Amino acid sequence: MCNLNLVLASRSPQRRAILEQLRLPFRVVPSDHVEETVPGDPVATAERNAFGKAADLFEHGLIGPGEVVLGVDTVVVIDDHILGKAADVRQARGYLRTLRGRTHDVVSGLTVLHAGTALVGHAVTAVTFRAFSDDAVERYLASDEWRDRAGAYAIQGVGSALVQAVRGDYFNVVGLPVALLVDRLAELGEDAFGWLC
Amino acid sequence: MCNLNLVLASRSPQRRAILEQLRLPFRVVPSDHVEETVPGDPVATAERNAFGKAADLFEHGLIGPGEVVLGVDTVVVIDDHILGKAADVRQARGYLRTLRGRTHDVVSGLTVLHAGTALVGHAVTAVTFRAFSDDAVERYLASDEWRDRAGAYAIQGVGSALVQAVRGDYFNVVGLPVALLVDRLAELGEDAFGWLC
Repeated sequence: MCNLNLVLASRSPQRRAILEQLRLPFRVVPSDHVEETVPGDPVATAERNAFGKAADLFEHGLIGPGEVVLGVDTVVVIDDHILGKAADVRQARGYLRTLRGRTHDVVSGLTVLHAGTALVGHAVTAVTFRAFSDDAVERYLASDEWRDRAGAYAIQGVGSALVQAVRGDYFNVVGLPVALLVDRLAELGEDAFGWLC
Repeated sequence: MCNLNLVLASRSPQRRAILEQLRLPFRVVPSDHVEETVPGDPVATAERNAFGKAADLFEHGLIGPGEVVLGVDTVVVIDDHILGKAADVRQARGYLRTLRGRTHDVVSGLTVLHAGTALVGHAVTAVTFRAFSDDAVERYLASDEWRDRAGAYAIQGVGSALVQAVRGDYFNVVGLPVALLVDRLAELGEDAFGWLC
């Protein structure tokens, strides 16, 4: 079908870039949803925030008939702790020192809202960091890339040099689980690449 | 150190983009090396071609003192068969139908040449494809993205919708194994992010 109309309920330039890479037609309507954390439960946290972002647009009457709303929330998890965006460089330093030389999970919740029906789900990707030095941490922090990123790093930026390997959906770590999105679109009758028209 | 001078022995825009993302200083000098295949041995194939590309520049006197030459070659492997770039749409169709619903390996050879010493190595990333339909194959082929790509797909393009998961270095699938490169640069005394100056 050639009439898919996605609405991305997010300001994230990374999520926009992934939809553009997929050549999916979409418009952006940032959500006013206030992110909340369910302590000790990253899946519930990510799924609730993803749903909240999508539902917020629906409730405010910002969605036209036939439009499909996409809400996504991404968190970083290590030792059952949820790492969101670092508040300052001190916290970012703590995050990077905690994550180095180990494997953490990146969890994204994804909600697809269409015709009053919500499909909710999540994806988990394991990311293994290199055992980089304190000096490397300081040089990475000086790049300022840690700002506004869950876990204080960007895998698609200069932060790719922090990473040894991933296991799962790479794009989930960037901020949008592509495989899960393609599954959800299939459930709406939109087969892979059906949107290339 | 702030005097790293990389020379990329490749025309690949994907490899250039990865070095730019890492903010590594480099210049491009395409190599005249003719790629060869060692039947049944993807690691030897990728390593020999990576070395050949780097050595070619060195032998032709195209490298200045202090410069570090980077040669990379990437192949796709399934059932012990090496899939290079598809010659035409028919072969690309065959590749995609062979790869769907299964896991294949992407093998990159990487050579770092510096002051007459060659460091040779390789990285392997496992890529699991979705079980997409014949129609999806045709629509993907129509996008023309299969051209000039090992295995007839681009994971960093609309082809991301073909992929279920990866295991290993994602950037290796794009065309340059970042983790291996960072290891090799460390062996040359260049610690991570030391080049950000």
